[in-house]
Amino acid sequence: MNSTNVKQTPKTAITPTRLQDYPEWYQQVIKAADLAEISPVRGCMTIKPWGYAIWENIQRVLDDQLKATGHKNAYFPLLIPVSFLEKEAAHIEGFAKECAVVTHYRLGVNEEGKLIPTSPLEEPYIIRPTSETIIGEAFSRWVQSYRDLPLLINQWANIMRWEMRTRMFLRTSEFLWQEGHTAHATSKEAVDETLKILDLYTAFVENYLAMPVIKGEKSESERFPGAVNTYCIEAMMQDKKALQAGTSHYLGQNFSKAFHIKFSNDKGVEELAYTTSWGVSTRMIGGLIMTHSDDNGLVLPPKIAPLHVVILPMIHKEEQRADIMAYCEQLATDLRKVYFDQRPLAVEIDTRELTGGEKAWSWVKKGVPIRVEVGGKELQNNAVFVGRRDKEYKDRLSMSREQFINNIVTELEDLQTALLDRARAFQQQNTRIIDNKADFYDFFTKSDGGFALAHWNGDRAIEAKIKQDLNVTIRCIPLTEQPEPGQCIFSGGKSAQRVIFAKSY
Amino acid sequence: MNSTNVKQTPKTAITPTRLQDYPEWYQQVIKAADLAEISPVRGCMTIKPWGYAIWENIQRVLDDQLKATGHKNAYFPLLIPVSFLEKEAAHIEGFAKECAVVTHYRLGVNEEGKLIPTSPLEEPYIIRPTSETIIGEAFSRWVQSYRDLPLLINQWANIMRWEMRTRMFLRTSEFLWQEGHTAHATSKEAVDETLKILDLYTAFVENYLAMPVIKGEKSESERFPGAVNTYCIEAMMQDKKALQAGTSHYLGQNFSKAFHIKFSNDKGVEELAYTTSWGVSTRMIGGLIMTHSDDNGLVLPPKIAPLHVVILPMIHKEEQRADIMAYCEQLATDLRKVYFDQRPLAVEIDTRELTGGEKAWSWVKKGVPIRVEVGGKELQNNAVFVGRRDKEYKDRLSMSREQFINNIVTELEDLQTALLDRARAFQQQNTRIIDNKADFYDFFTKSDGGFALAHWNGDRAIEAKIKQDLNVTIRCIPLTEQPEPGQCIFSGGKSAQRVIFAKSY
Repeated sequence: MNSTNVKQTPKTAITPTRLQDYPEWYQQVIKAADLAEISPVRGCMTIKPWGYAIWENIQRVLDDQLKATGHKNAYFPLLIPVSFLEKEAAHIEGFAKECAVVTHYRLGVNEEGKLIPTSPLEEPYIIRPTSETIIGEAFSRWVQSYRDLPLLINQWANIMRWEMRTRMFLRTSEFLWQEGHTAHATSKEAVDETLKILDLYTAFVENYLAMPVIKGEKSESERFPGAVNTYCIEAMMQDKKALQAGTSHYLGQNFSKAFHIKFSNDKGVEELAYTTSWGVSTRMIGGLIMTHSDDNGLVLPPKIAPLHVVILPMIHKEEQRADIMAYCEQLATDLRKVYFDQRPLAVEIDTRELTGGEKAWSWVKKGVPIRVEVGGKELQNNAVFVGRRDKEYKDRLSMSREQFINNIVTELEDLQTALLDRARAFQQQNTRIIDNKADFYDFFTKSDGGFALAHWNGDRAIEAKIKQDLNVTIRCIPLTEQPEPGQCIFSGGKSAQRVIFAKSY
Repeated sequence: MNSTNVKQTPKTAITPTRLQDYPEWYQQVIKAADLAEISPVRGCMTIKPWGYAIWENIQRVLDDQLKATGHKNAYFPLLIPVSFLEKEAAHIEGFAKECAVVTHYRLGVNEEGKLIPTSPLEEPYIIRPTSETIIGEAFSRWVQSYRDLPLLINQWANIMRWEMRTRMFLRTSEFLWQEGHTAHATSKEAVDETLKILDLYTAFVENYLAMPVIKGEKSESERFPGAVNTYCIEAMMQDKKALQAGTSHYLGQNFSKAFHIKFSNDKGVEELAYTTSWGVSTRMIGGLIMTHSDDNGLVLPPKIAPLHVVILPMIHKEEQRADIMAYCEQLATDLRKVYFDQRPLAVEIDTRELTGGEKAWSWVKKGVPIRVEVGGKELQNNAVFVGRRDKEYKDRLSMSREQFINNIVTELEDLQTALLDRARAFQQQNTRIIDNKADFYDFFTKSDGGFALAHWNGDRAIEAKIKQDLNVTIRCIPLTEQPEPGQCIFSGGKSAQRVIFAKSY
């Protein structure tokens, strides 16, 4: 690598930049990092290997944590009889308008030689938009006695909601998620579970995805269809909009009533169980992209990156090829003996026949935390030339091989922390305490907005008006130890605490 | 535990026995082990935690092996446009008659207040019965140059084929699988990949599931729709029927032609790629059950068991409870430090309030390799009372705690080998070389049958007649180093080698 190559690269690897066109920048980051692509199926994406590897890391960590807290995985049918949806009134409202309906079980050939549906089903099915109903039906059989409780089940699955306006990872007709479903003997136990999972999600998203979030409860109008309470974690993207990164629902006895989930208590008396459900999805990858990435592409927190270190052999003289490659192989072997977050480092050598600049920039765009260039000079000095993804490309450093290996874990931990700190500072800088309506409207019309902490009296009509006027919603009522009461800035009425308003994805 | 409890247990834990009613025995083993249940969705099952944990172990091992051989995971849409199916003629034939068709994207309420499909789609979709078409379309964009080849992709997914006669794990409308899809520059490379995967499957099924298999090629009439050659592994169940445990297809240029998967070779000339596809599914769990289980329930090979050891505290005197529990906890802690097949032993203590016999038999039925009973006597003598799943319940052994821990790995390896050896001996005992038509018909009508190794001239009409007469098919043309030519026993014509005939699942 020399300075000529650096100058040849465009000023930013991604066009447009975040400032120029944030939504288009997002699509271009996905493309440049080769994370996913739009598929020929309406509203659905194909998750490409680099994107799927991130999802696999998310799955592995969360799955371990859910198992460690006593949850067991199971698998329920993809299809849901339409009659099941009818059993919970709020649930119909929420999902009937955007679902894929299976009506036939065979294709035949028509007069023009085209394939058309034949053999209609007696009762149509929908592809699961969520599984409370089909799992509720199973729980009604699995739960008989208080000894069967708590029942703690999780499912990794694909989900289908027929979205009209789609955006890769953030909102697609099909997406991947985990959905937890639990049943408990008492309301308290079910609420405790709901909040325990909210804490688990918070810790995961902050510690692994390096996304700072605010934990809170949804207002009534933003609740999951059929829930008594919906809790959520809300993150701030770089365009200052909110992204709901996970939800945890206390369902009370709503689904127990609809599906007859009953148990005999320790006195032999029959009771309805209390249930919960909760989930996080491939949407988190969208949040990850929009939280950390920059105008040169994806930036990955080391704890979730498919590769921690990429080694780039820089061969300018053919006679050095064998020695440089051997040097790189040995470096990779030594690095793979190092553990980070309880696993061996993931290291790859890029042997493609590209110029040094092309090679290095392809990994910048993919967000790999650490790039190591090895050329003749490094070979001679037993050194490495190191780039860290959150620093400027030009700020690469030469250091001894030993120093690099000895410090790699510290370096990755430092990068992980730096990303979280940077995102937290951004969120704080763009969060405003607002105490009157005029300032509130100005915040969302005359500035770029952000999170507004304001008093509200709980009235749905006010919430609806703000949404209509500003496209701003209550993201959550934060869970706080010491709620500070006050006066609603819209009505003057009583408010128990400030709530968070923002535009959102 | 004392002899009274043992006598109280029924002679066999599963009713009916294998001899009395094999198909019903199979269903009862699934129920007794709590592996899965029939769901309210036609032809679909719910995989319960114990069954899903087996699938997770299968996934983990296979996924590691596929990654180690250079394959990368990705995720493609669940839905396939009907027009895609139309592009490969054989493929239509194979899948159009049994597919779930999505025709609408919304439910509305009719005059009677029932939910009905509204908003028809312009073009219907089918739920993927396999993904060659949708992946072929993606490959046509991903493959441009010879530098993009080989392209080695794998997907873990749910699959839907509208089966009319279903049986849990073996044949259900929805099932889980992995499907590999690869593209290569030459026919030879693609054939090599097809056979390499067949070897990988063989090693996995034999070494992990302890199921001996025969590798072979399918006859033309049994080929995958759209394949040039289909290779398979065939196992023998305890009722002497064959089960196809995995398939690997060489697709030639059939799907490349249909989906325009083209690349510029190193001379800049455009060529069609050669593709492969291959898969194994939750069906393997059905094979596992039918290979090893006995009249007392499931028998699990240790390398795939969700639990290696279950510890059963046997508390007859309340004052011993604390000491017995502490002894069990320490035993579990010590066992979890032991590694088997590169992972720590999975150990659980069963603290349920059941009688000793109920507790022990519940784990016999679930197939846990090693049960350890700990009561007052064991506590006193620093001993354990050990049952091994492949031995008689009454043949439990008392041994010192130290001896047990020191030998546990050897014991599990021995059990793993014993299961494979037993299954291999059974397969050999029930495989017959048959040299004339009369003996062949007698084998399948006057005896219980098994695998018949016989000469066949390659004529489809003969194959069809045998299927009609005996419900017997050619399971495979074994891959053998030294094929032994001969005379077709049905026609007297030339035969290149013996093929395997059997009844099958």
